[in-house]
Amino acid sequence: MESKLRVVIIGGVACGPKTAARLRRLHPNAEITMVERDAIVSYGACGLPYYVEGLFSSINTLIETPVGVARTPAFFDKAKGFKVLTRTEAVKVDRDNQKVDIRNLETNETGSLPYDKLVLATGGLAFHPPIPGIDLKNVWFMTHPNHAESLVKEIQDKGFKTAAMVGAGFIGIEMAEALTHRGLSVHLIEMADQIMPGVLDHDIATFASKHLKQKGVKLVLGERVTGILGDTQASGVQTNQQNIDAEAVIIAVGTRPNDSLARDAGLECMARGGIVVNSYCQTSDPNIYAGGDCAVNTYIDRLIGNPMYVPLGSTANKHGRIIANHIAGNAVPFGGITGTGIVKAFDFNISRTGMSERQAIDLNLDYETTYWSGPDRPHYMPGSKPLLIKMIACKKTRKLLGIQAAGMGDVARRIDTAAAVIRFGGTLDELADIDFAYAPPFSPPIDPLATCAHIMLNKLDGIANGISAYKAKERIENDDVVLLDVRTPGEIETMQLPYPCTHIPLGALREKAETLPKDKDILAFCKVSMRGYEAQRILNAKGFDRVYFIEGGIIGWPFEVKMLK
Amino acid sequence: MESKLRVVIIGGVACGPKTAARLRRLHPNAEITMVERDAIVSYGACGLPYYVEGLFSSINTLIETPVGVARTPAFFDKAKGFKVLTRTEAVKVDRDNQKVDIRNLETNETGSLPYDKLVLATGGLAFHPPIPGIDLKNVWFMTHPNHAESLVKEIQDKGFKTAAMVGAGFIGIEMAEALTHRGLSVHLIEMADQIMPGVLDHDIATFASKHLKQKGVKLVLGERVTGILGDTQASGVQTNQQNIDAEAVIIAVGTRPNDSLARDAGLECMARGGIVVNSYCQTSDPNIYAGGDCAVNTYIDRLIGNPMYVPLGSTANKHGRIIANHIAGNAVPFGGITGTGIVKAFDFNISRTGMSERQAIDLNLDYETTYWSGPDRPHYMPGSKPLLIKMIACKKTRKLLGIQAAGMGDVARRIDTAAAVIRFGGTLDELADIDFAYAPPFSPPIDPLATCAHIMLNKLDGIANGISAYKAKERIENDDVVLLDVRTPGEIETMQLPYPCTHIPLGALREKAETLPKDKDILAFCKVSMRGYEAQRILNAKGFDRVYFIEGGIIGWPFEVKMLK
Repeated sequence: MESKLRVVIIGGVACGPKTAARLRRLHPNAEITMVERDAIVSYGACGLPYYVEGLFSSINTLIETPVGVARTPAFFDKAKGFKVLTRTEAVKVDRDNQKVDIRNLETNETGSLPYDKLVLATGGLAFHPPIPGIDLKNVWFMTHPNHAESLVKEIQDKGFKTAAMVGAGFIGIEMAEALTHRGLSVHLIEMADQIMPGVLDHDIATFASKHLKQKGVKLVLGERVTGILGDTQASGVQTNQQNIDAEAVIIAVGTRPNDSLARDAGLECMARGGIVVNSYCQTSDPNIYAGGDCAVNTYIDRLIGNPMYVPLGSTANKHGRIIANHIAGNAVPFGGITGTGIVKAFDFNISRTGMSERQAIDLNLDYETTYWSGPDRPHYMPGSKPLLIKMIACKKTRKLLGIQAAGMGDVARRIDTAAAVIRFGGTLDELADIDFAYAPPFSPPIDPLATCAHIMLNKLDGIANGISAYKAKERIENDDVVLLDVRTPGEIETMQLPYPCTHIPLGALREKAETLPKDKDILAFCKVSMRGYEAQRILNAKGFDRVYFIEGGIIGWPFEVKMLK
Repeated sequence: MESKLRVVIIGGVACGPKTAARLRRLHPNAEITMVERDAIVSYGACGLPYYVEGLFSSINTLIETPVGVARTPAFFDKAKGFKVLTRTEAVKVDRDNQKVDIRNLETNETGSLPYDKLVLATGGLAFHPPIPGIDLKNVWFMTHPNHAESLVKEIQDKGFKTAAMVGAGFIGIEMAEALTHRGLSVHLIEMADQIMPGVLDHDIATFASKHLKQKGVKLVLGERVTGILGDTQASGVQTNQQNIDAEAVIIAVGTRPNDSLARDAGLECMARGGIVVNSYCQTSDPNIYAGGDCAVNTYIDRLIGNPMYVPLGSTANKHGRIIANHIAGNAVPFGGITGTGIVKAFDFNISRTGMSERQAIDLNLDYETTYWSGPDRPHYMPGSKPLLIKMIACKKTRKLLGIQAAGMGDVARRIDTAAAVIRFGGTLDELADIDFAYAPPFSPPIDPLATCAHIMLNKLDGIANGISAYKAKERIENDDVVLLDVRTPGEIETMQLPYPCTHIPLGALREKAETLPKDKDILAFCKVSMRGYEAQRILNAKGFDRVYFIEGGIIGWPFEVKMLK
């Protein structure tokens, strides 16, 4: 009888169970053991904010299968066919003897698990900032079902009315919404001067922030939390500028790769954290794999040279499949990530994929940006919702580098399509050619993503002379420019930019062009910027060569606008 | 002074105005004249069913810009900068003298327009079947705002209660929904034995048909309409099998390219209709372009050799841009289409892109199919909606060939992403690698499209032994097979396949496997097919080699199921 392949998996949330289940299907005779410190495994960690929001009433929903079966060790044994040891800590990886030393956290019993292949799926650790009061009662880190459950219980039992959410990343925003829906008044505090730093560029972040504020979230940007107030339980947070009262304090200021086991075993890790793996998720020891939030990833086209740390449940699942395939003798390389991220924030969907402008600058790329704003369906369809897209492209290759999108409209669809284009190294022309699904309930005849690519091509070809809202604001406030509003009188009565404007509806511009100066920069705009662009072309044709249009128009203006009706 | 480039455009609905507007922006000095038979131009023809449905109350909405400006010749002159001649027929193209003979349909005045470049955007013509009664009152073709307006007026004035919709293509389905919402009882009659023939494969069409029937549409498949009943006004339709009463008869049995002007001018056209163009939309006369519904298209990767006739507003707009670019000296080739189509049918979204299985068969490709069904978000998220995806891939190259999707879930997102993958000739592994936007409000951690690719890869690798619902039904009804339901008892109480089944929940299968026969084919299934697949692997490991799982499970079963609760 041939000896069985012994596979030990450390970590039981996402990558671990995925690896084990897939490997079992591929390799009926492998001896698969999954070790997990916690009492529960394979839970939907991404669902915690939605439990807090009250979208489902039992925290067990996150631990059960879709048909309500609890994912217990017995379930994995019977349904999935592998062994799960919960409340069991992997203490040390002994590479020389190919075994993992373990300890039962209930009984303190120790032992060891020999392996032929070892999978590290140890996940991430919420960063605990070294500030006074961090261990007070009523301070939560939202990384475990227990945290969400106790937070909801306290809110219900104590009738909390205020919360401070520290960190405006994905979890911070999801929690700000969840707590607001629960009836709490929420301060969302972020050290950076924008929400979602490192994910969104400042302009898109500013645009999205408007919505959070409209929904009642008290946004505190550019302030560092220096301590948690309170004696035994939190009563608020102290920043470098103010004290903020809060009965509940939730901290989500980033995740760090839990790579200590790998480090101790001498496996290659990044200095800043994260286990280094190849395309098959093998570590520097080919018998040891790593996947999920403990590992770093490679950008899909290697344009970004340094490994990236982007912990995500979707990537963790991909890793699990890659690892199981490779152990089973089916080597399929993982292509890498494009840094996609998405978050729902009240009625807004906010997302990005590929490179941000910030990254393009850091990489010293010769890039161009552009913006598109507008409704996601033809104007005559009810239920049409606006969105703003920012696009970044390489000037030389005309390839799409990245997009960011925010708004009530269908963002996910455009992000996935853009992620696919970036996956294949597609150019803007190729993107615009895609046979997008078109019917009025779904999109305008030219998909917003394609239109945005068209604007970018027009800029690269020197036809469209767009200026971003940020640069426009700077010019308006510092220079003697003409701000030309080409909307209809009816539109102007409803919404305006908060600056003096010259009003000439587009239809009258050919006649009235002479009333404009040729020796000043003219910044044309409309609701979304299509007519602004047309105004630029009309004036160009009449010999004006200092005309720009404000990309994204009023709808995409990230700062405050004057709402008149 | 240099002589101006004279550009004449025939046709003013989609491709025509797009060409003219773009060309004006690129070429400030060109003399652009657009000629249109009709009194109105540049209307949202795709919006007609939604007007009938009552989603907006004035038909003029379709003729106005998003800010309510009527798209009249004066509007085009002032805002867009080109000349529009309405109620003007292009009688003949005189290629030798580079002029178009025109006639004013109001005054009968004739004249001619000299051109340097001519653009044919003459659109499509609704096919008028040669049957008795086709010209009766209360028979509508839904191709013009006047048709929609008079239909609604008649419904309101006469209080119509019944309608017969002839043709179950895109417009037929949209109109069936629109009229049902208006309170009419609708017969939807289709000559083929499925809805959307030529677009969907029979199985996906059958799956989608269930929803139409649930919504009260009386589907009549496989019957040919042989005449319209009634003396002066329609009272119903006669098929080759029955008479169906109807106060309103709407006919949408296909569009034919309006290519007569091109044919008469000796330009190359397909025998079955449609002007032949190159990648720049040039006809066989390089000074004459054609775009929109009068032209044929090429499939994106030339896998489908014959030009395809797929009239769509989105493609017409792409053509307009390609033509304007080329006339302006900026040659950007059009990559081609992938045959994408989408329709909303009540709560269902139904769509396809790329090749159908039918086309793969006709092309003699060595292909494989698979199916995925399930909710479009994690099970714990409320608002999650089911969908069914069918995927077609090339066995040899492992490239994605096409997908079809139907259901309440987010179909458009997956179709666009698949269209992008097909655009770039992507393989299934590359598809699965895409960094899809993941957060619980948007999708499961592994996107349905990626999971479907995984299943396909498992099939190609000989790991997954899937059988389609169609083949399963045939086997169940004709052969002595074991139908193995591996769901939980609770699930079985709510919904069942209408056949005797052996019930063994997946968790008990390892123990109870011996109760199953090894000398019969076993067809395992569950709700969506994941556990069915796991059952197959479990039984394989126990020496059963005649096990299949039914792809798509009960959720994806296209035929009737027993609903028990």
